[in-house]
Amino acid sequence: MSLSKFNGLELPASADFHVHLRDGAMMETVVPTIKKGGVNTVYVMPNLVPPVTSSSDAMAYQARLRAIDPSINYLMTLYLHPSITPAVIRGAKAQGIVGVKSCKFPNPNHAQLPKHALSTNSIANTSNFPDPAGVTTNSSSGVISYEPFYPVFTAMEKCGMVLNLHGECPSDHDKNITILNAESSFLPTLKSLHEKFPNLKIVLEHCTTKEAVEAVKSCGPNVVGTITAHHLFLTVDDWADDAFCFCKPVAKWPSDRTALIHAALSGTGKFFLGSDSAPHPISSKKGGTGKTAAGVFTQANVTSLILDAFELAIERKLIKEEDVTKEILEGLLSGYGREFYGVKDLSGEKIVLRKGEEKIQELITGKEGVEVVPFRRGMGTWSVEWK
Amino acid sequence: MSLSKFNGLELPASADFHVHLRDGAMMETVVPTIKKGGVNTVYVMPNLVPPVTSSSDAMAYQARLRAIDPSINYLMTLYLHPSITPAVIRGAKAQGIVGVKSCKFPNPNHAQLPKHALSTNSIANTSNFPDPAGVTTNSSSGVISYEPFYPVFTAMEKCGMVLNLHGECPSDHDKNITILNAESSFLPTLKSLHEKFPNLKIVLEHCTTKEAVEAVKSCGPNVVGTITAHHLFLTVDDWADDAFCFCKPVAKWPSDRTALIHAALSGTGKFFLGSDSAPHPISSKKGGTGKTAAGVFTQANVTSLILDAFELAIERKLIKEEDVTKEILEGLLSGYGREFYGVKDLSGEKIVLRKGEEKIQELITGKEGVEVVPFRRGMGTWSVEWK
Repeated sequence: MSLSKFNGLELPASADFHVHLRDGAMMETVVPTIKKGGVNTVYVMPNLVPPVTSSSDAMAYQARLRAIDPSINYLMTLYLHPSITPAVIRGAKAQGIVGVKSCKFPNPNHAQLPKHALSTNSIANTSNFPDPAGVTTNSSSGVISYEPFYPVFTAMEKCGMVLNLHGECPSDHDKNITILNAESSFLPTLKSLHEKFPNLKIVLEHCTTKEAVEAVKSCGPNVVGTITAHHLFLTVDDWADDAFCFCKPVAKWPSDRTALIHAALSGTGKFFLGSDSAPHPISSKKGGTGKTAAGVFTQANVTSLILDAFELAIERKLIKEEDVTKEILEGLLSGYGREFYGVKDLSGEKIVLRKGEEKIQELITGKEGVEVVPFRRGMGTWSVEWK
Repeated sequence: MSLSKFNGLELPASADFHVHLRDGAMMETVVPTIKKGGVNTVYVMPNLVPPVTSSSDAMAYQARLRAIDPSINYLMTLYLHPSITPAVIRGAKAQGIVGVKSCKFPNPNHAQLPKHALSTNSIANTSNFPDPAGVTTNSSSGVISYEPFYPVFTAMEKCGMVLNLHGECPSDHDKNITILNAESSFLPTLKSLHEKFPNLKIVLEHCTTKEAVEAVKSCGPNVVGTITAHHLFLTVDDWADDAFCFCKPVAKWPSDRTALIHAALSGTGKFFLGSDSAPHPISSKKGGTGKTAAGVFTQANVTSLILDAFELAIERKLIKEEDVTKEILEGLLSGYGREFYGVKDLSGEKIVLRKGEEKIQELITGKEGVEVVPFRRGMGTWSVEWK
């Protein structure tokens, strides 16, 4: 137990800056796992079916979430879409909406997923999804052009809303772009946006590559990156034959995983937790003969998985025990994100970490037969208790 | 229909130099699909559970296959294993066994697969599988050492048996080796074996990379490569979320796919068809919450899929219609392989290709509830009739 020094450690409640909470019966199943994971503040992604593109949709969604657990601070977002205008931005800011999420652009190969069950990171999962018309790939440079949204970004810059980027290019086999280099191919677009909007707060969500880490570092303080719990464990070897380890952006090389671990421990405030916990019913993962929905579910163990990941990294000699300090852990799990977003934790709630016999659940079940398989099911982890 | 010139084309029966025919009910389901695919000669891989490691096992297996369809020429192989000795080789040659297959070395991450249902390319799929003791990775150079088997290879060289290599290194995250570069990492081992045994016929099975194609080309005439039908279609984007497109070695980059298409059309005799058609019941692909068995099933459409692949490549402007000649097609589908293995087609059987309304089956069903999902199910393909 390489981080035994943290046994009994008291931390501020974690803040998870990238969550998928879905709707309906799945939402009712997933929301109770937020506090199980030691989290009291969540940044709620808007890719419901249909997606959240108006303030009223966002507020209604927030109300549905609060009805399940009112003790959680739900930070709401809008889904970047042609219907989003500068006026919508100003109205959203007034309502307390925090940011706008740009999801991955359509993958023409992606099969249609059943509407009733889920939303995914891909906006091409249902024919009802609007195409972000006007966002095109500039074919000579490979940079995705967000030009139609520049007035929106200007408004966001002015009123202090955050732009959350799922940073991947669409696959383009003529350019040898696949899911393996979709993220690194996106980085010129990130830099271009940052140059055009230097005062716009931008989050490169769920970084999965060494290149993305370097790109975020090379940008000014308004550009940060979130890191998931699962990408600290996974490489391509893990998800190739395991649907429950498959998500987008896909986990890649051991060297990428190492870069993410180091970024998570960098202590600079540039990287913090955004779990991208993405629940899917087993049927969407394994059922029938259809495609596998992308998403790894970690919500119930977000805090403890981070500890587990660092312990594994110490065992693998990628880092040393002394690289993991209380200050860095606190920053990664809540401080840096709260600082970036300007979201204080008024509750003052504290969690206590202990390493004992705790195991990750085999299965999470809910109403209407909802069944979700958590990441690293059945494996030992830290216990997280509310003080 | 870019290869309309081949409508009505008569060819010798195809020869598939890499097939998995399993045993029991699955074997009874799969063997009838061999001739459906226009094939009358198959090179039968030995990775049953337990694997075929003796001549008597191989002959008994051949008898079971002949009982289902005696009109097919089943070329039998042994599974490379410590129990294989020079004496075993000489005895096998006398029995008409053609080659010895070296499967992929154990992946410590690979979960145990149910014995009753299947065999896979990984020899680590059951605790009953013997470890190829003595085959280790030379850690300083990364070359897998086959040294314990050198006497066997010498005997094979002498009596003209063929060595079939599943050419992938085990994953090694300290060396940044994953399933994405396992094949390219193996190529020094291939070259080393060829240098030590220049008269040994070696087949690098199911090449999936540009590097493998180049490596085979750079070796003498005793080293050839087989190419599957599915790797002419697939990239990583296809199998990430589709269990029925997932196999080992994994499909990789568009540039790799292009290199394979060009290798298949090279007309040099260095590359020929080895489908690696690998049937699995749906339950092994999608069932429960376990790992996904690796393997793509193409046996029923092996010949027509090759035509489809070239037509797609013409549409994508990777090749020209005139690059696909009757001579090259004949060589790829049967001639080059028969030449390399010294296996004449005494039947003189012919197949006729036509492009019409033929579609690949949605599902292949057999006894005891066996269900196999074929590659490109439901899609249009060429019809293949026996003259």
